[in-house]
Amino acid sequence: MDKLIIGGKELKNRLFIGSGKFADESLIGDIVAQTGVEVVTVALRRVNLNGGKENILNYIPKDCVLLPNTSGARNAEEAVRIARLARAAGCGNWVKIEVISDNKYLLPDNNETIKATRILAEEGFVVLPYMHPDLYAAKELERAGAAAIMPLGAPIGTNRGLKTKEIVRILIEECELPVIVDAGIGKPSEAAEAMELGAAAVLVNTAIATAGNPAMMANAFSQAVQAGRQAFLAQPGETTEFARASSPLTGFLRS
Amino acid sequence: MDKLIIGGKELKNRLFIGSGKFADESLIGDIVAQTGVEVVTVALRRVNLNGGKENILNYIPKDCVLLPNTSGARNAEEAVRIARLARAAGCGNWVKIEVISDNKYLLPDNNETIKATRILAEEGFVVLPYMHPDLYAAKELERAGAAAIMPLGAPIGTNRGLKTKEIVRILIEECELPVIVDAGIGKPSEAAEAMELGAAAVLVNTAIATAGNPAMMANAFSQAVQAGRQAFLAQPGETTEFARASSPLTGFLRS
Amino acid sequence: MDKLIIGGKELKNRLFIGSGKFADESLIGDIVAQTGVEVVTVALRRVNLNGGKENILNYIPKDCVLLPNTSGARNAEEAVRIARLARAAGCGNWVKIEVISDNKYLLPDNNETIKATRILAEEGFVVLPYMHPDLYAAKELERAGAAAIMPLGAPIGTNRGLKTKEIVRILIEECELPVIVDAGIGKPSEAAEAMELGAAAVLVNTAIATAGNPAMMANAFSQAVQAGRQAFLAQPGETTEFARASSPLTGFLRS
Amino acid sequence: MDKLIIGGKELKNRLFIGSGKFADESLIGDIVAQTGVEVVTVALRRVNLNGGKENILNYIPKDCVLLPNTSGARNAEEAVRIARLARAAGCGNWVKIEVISDNKYLLPDNNETIKATRILAEEGFVVLPYMHPDLYAAKELERAGAAAIMPLGAPIGTNRGLKTKEIVRILIEECELPVIVDAGIGKPSEAAEAMELGAAAVLVNTAIATAGNPAMMANAFSQAVQAGRQAFLAQPGETTEFARASSPLTGFLRS
Repeated sequence: MDKLIIGGKELKNRLFIGSGKFADESLIGDIVAQTGVEVVTVALRRVNLNGGKENILNYIPKDCVLLPNTSGARNAEEAVRIARLARAAGCGNWVKIEVISDNKYLLPDNNETIKATRILAEEGFVVLPYMHPDLYAAKELERAGAAAIMPLGAPIGTNRGLKTKEIVRILIEECELPVIVDAGIGKPSEAAEAMELGAAAVLVNTAIATAGNPAMMANAFSQAVQAGRQAFLAQPGETTEFARASSPLTGFLRS
Repeated sequence: MDKLIIGGKELKNRLFIGSGKFADESLIGDIVAQTGVEVVTVALRRVNLNGGKENILNYIPKDCVLLPNTSGARNAEEAVRIARLARAAGCGNWVKIEVISDNKYLLPDNNETIKATRILAEEGFVVLPYMHPDLYAAKELERAGAAAIMPLGAPIGTNRGLKTKEIVRILIEECELPVIVDAGIGKPSEAAEAMELGAAAVLVNTAIATAGNPAMMANAFSQAVQAGRQAFLAQPGETTEFARASSPLTGFLRS
Repeated sequence: MDKLIIGGKELKNRLFIGSGKFADESLIGDIVAQTGVEVVTVALRRVNLNGGKENILNYIPKDCVLLPNTSGARNAEEAVRIARLARAAGCGNWVKIEVISDNKYLLPDNNETIKATRILAEEGFVVLPYMHPDLYAAKELERAGAAAIMPLGAPIGTNRGLKTKEIVRILIEECELPVIVDAGIGKPSEAAEAMELGAAAVLVNTAIATAGNPAMMANAFSQAVQAGRQAFLAQPGETTEFARASSPLTGFLRS
Repeated sequence: MDKLIIGGKELKNRLFIGSGKFADESLIGDIVAQTGVEVVTVALRRVNLNGGKENILNYIPKDCVLLPNTSGARNAEEAVRIARLARAAGCGNWVKIEVISDNKYLLPDNNETIKATRILAEEGFVVLPYMHPDLYAAKELERAGAAAIMPLGAPIGTNRGLKTKEIVRILIEECELPVIVDAGIGKPSEAAEAMELGAAAVLVNTAIATAGNPAMMANAFSQAVQAGRQAFLAQPGETTEFARASSPLTGFLRS
C-alpha cells in the first residue's frame, strides 16, 4: 500500500486544500465530503479566537486535520507566536509556517522559516514549512525537525503552475522528507505533473476557490493528484525522439 | 450531464486506448474492467482474419466499442480496403483512419486521410481520422463526414506530450466535431492538459503499454482525463503575474 | 563559407523582414542600411500600381530583393493573379505566396498554396510559400518547385514565438529546401532558437514594427539570427541531467 | 549610452566567460580577441600560485578583468581564504564567490555565500556571488556589499537553459544590483532570453568550451547577448492570442 505518513498520521488523500478566498465558505465542507481531502489549512488570523459565532473553523469538518498557518508573520518570532496561539486555541499541534516580508510576490523567507521550524518542532509541533525551493534550506529544515517541506510552484495565488520544476525535482530526489508542492498550482494537469515527479502531495487553494465551480474543480484536483501519484508508481516508459509504431509496419496488404 | 456522443453512441469514458505494444495482451481486459474504458483501437493487420486461435480480438472485451485502425495503409485506397475488410470480418462499422507514408516520424497524410474519410463516411462507417493538426484539414474532414478528428500531440510512440498545443487549441475552438488528441501523450498530466483545453477525449497506447505497471498507468490516465474534463467544465480562474494572498494581509499580531 | 542560395541569389543575411505595420515607413530604409537585411516582403495590395507618389515601394531600398506577397488571396487563383500583377508591375520574379481564408488566426491553406506554387514555379517565379508546418505539404511544395518553404512559428502578428517547434524541427531534418520560419516570432531569442534548430532564415515583421524602437529591435533580430546560425554550425555540446563542475573538484585547500 | 558598471569599471561587453573545460586553453585568447569579452573567470585552484610555466593565467589576455572564483570552497571561510590568496597572488580584487557542498548538482549555498560576501566586500573586494535564485538572499547580498548577483539558470555544466526564469525575472525586477545569469545556459537563444528579461549580463563556460567549435560558439553567444540586450531596450510589442494581419485584409482583388 502507498501510504503518506506525516506527524505520525497516515493520510490517504494527497490533495491538501486551503480555505482562503472562497466566496462561500460553506463549500469547504462539501468539498471535503466529496473528495476525501484530509488536510485543510487555515490562516490563524482568520480564526475568531474568542469563539464567536462567525468563525472559519465552523466550516472545516471535524475529521480533517486542521493545519493552521502563520500567514501574516513577517519573522520567525511572529510565526512562533501564531503557532502557539493556534495550539492554545485548540487548533491542534500541526502548523504550516509561512514567513513572508515581500509584499509583491509573497515569497517565503527561508531563514526565518528555518528558525521558526526549529523552535516549534522542539515544542512538539508537527511543522510543515512553506519554503522557497532551495536544496540547502530543505536540508536545514530536515535537520530542524520539519515533518515535510512545502516548496512553492509559483508565487501564491498566481495560478502559474509548476514553474520551479527544475529545483523541485532535485528536492524530491535529494530530501528524505515528503515534498508537498504548495502555491502557484493553477490547473489539475500541473498538480499531476508535480506528483509524477514524485511529490508526496500538493496543496491547492486559489485555483479551487476562484474557479467558476469550486466543488467541481476540487474534484478535478483530487483526481489529478491521484492520477499523478499512480503514474509515478507505475514507472512511465521513456520519451523518444523518433516515432515508434504501435504495431509492426510490415503491411499485410502488400503481401 | 456531460455527454460525449460519437457515431450515435453515448460514451461516458473519455479515455480511448490502443492495444499495441503490450508485453502481455491479457492485460487489456483487466484495464478495460478497471477503468471503464469504452473504446479500444486495434490494427486490423494484427487481427487474424481467419479466426484462428491466436487473435488480438480475443483480448478485447465484447462490450467495448472496437475501433479497428488502418495502420499500415500508405494511401486512401489502402485505408479504404482495410476498413472494408474490418467490417466484413465483423469488427463493426467504426474505423480509425491512419494513412502514413513517412517511416521516421509516422506522421499522417492529411489529404489521403480526407479522401478515405469521404469514401468511408459515404459507406456508413463511423470515421475517426488520425490527422496532423491543421485547421483547413480539420474543416475538410468535417465536410467529408468524419465523426470526430484525432490530431496528434507528438509523433506516435514518442511519449513527448502535447507539443502541438498551439494548433490543437485552435482546432478545438474552431471545429464543430469532437477533437480527440491521439499520439504522443506520454503522461497523465499531459492528457489532463489536453482535456483542460477542451479536447473531447484522449487516445493513449504507448504510454500505458510500455509503463512498468500498465494497469496502474491506465488507471492514472483514466483519472487524469476525468480530472482535465472536470477542470474544463469548472471554469478555471485566471492566471496572474503578481501574487495574491490567500487571506488578507493586515496582520492581527500587529494590532 | 556558409551561404544561403535562393532562386540563384546568394544571400548573406538570414533575417528577412516585412514592411507592414510600421508607424513610420521611412524606418524601413534605415533598418535595411543598419542590419544589412537583403530581403523585404511587401503586400502587393499595399503597392500603388499606378505608380503614384505615395507608394510603399519608395521606402524599400533598391538593392534589396523585393519579395511581393499575395496577402489577401483566398485561393490559389487569386494568389496567382496577384503574383502576375506584381511581376508585370516591375516587382521582380520573387513571390511569397500567402493563401488564407481563416480570418481569426490567419492560418495558411496548404493545398491552395501548393497549387499556386506549382503554377508560378512553372512560370519562372522564385516561389516562397508561407505554410502550415506539415511534412507532406512540405514535400509536395518541394515537388511543386518552391525555392524554400516558410512554415509559421505561431499565428501571424501574435509574437507568441516558435510554438510549432516540434514539427518545424522535423521539416528541417526531412526537407531538402531551405526552411524559413515566418510568422509568430516575437523576440530575438525565439529567432535564435529557430536558427539553432537549423532553419535557413527567419522572417520578422510585427515584432520589429510594433517595438518601441523598431530600428533597435531590427538590429537585435539581425544579431540573434546570426548568433543562432553560428550556434548551429558550431555544434552545441550535449545537455545533461546532473551538474558537471567547470573545474576539477579535488580542493587544493584541503591538502 | 547603455553602460554596465561593476566595481567602478565600465564594461561594454555583457558576455562573461569561464575558462574551465577547454580542450585547448589557447582558444581563450582567440575568443577574447574576437568577441571583445572583458571578464573571464578562472578557478583559483587551477592557478599555479608558484608562478610555474604551466599556468592557466597565461591564457587569459592581460586587458581582461580577471575574475578569480572560489570553486572548491565548501563554506564561507574557505571562500574567504581563496579570495585572499588570489589577491595576494596578483589576481586583482575581483572575486566570484562559489560556495558549494552539494556534489551532485553543485548548487550554491546562499547563506555561506552571504557570509563570505560580507567579509570580502568589507576588505575591499569587488564581490560577485554565484547564488541560488532567491529574493531574500539577493536582498541580503545587496546589504552585504555585493557588486552584482549571479543567480543560476540551471545546475552548472548542464546546458539546460534558463530553467529558473520565474524567479530570475523577480530578482531583476526587485533588486538594485545588476543580475548576471550564471550557470546552465546552453545555447545562445537562452542567453538572449535572459537578457530580454533584463539581466545585466550572462556568464557562459560549458556551452562554449564543449561545443564542436568553441570560438564560433563564443561569437554566437556574444551576439546573442547583445541581441537580447537591445531587444530589452527596444521595448518589445505585446503578445496576443489572435492573429493580426501584417497588412489590412480588405482585398484589392475583390473590388
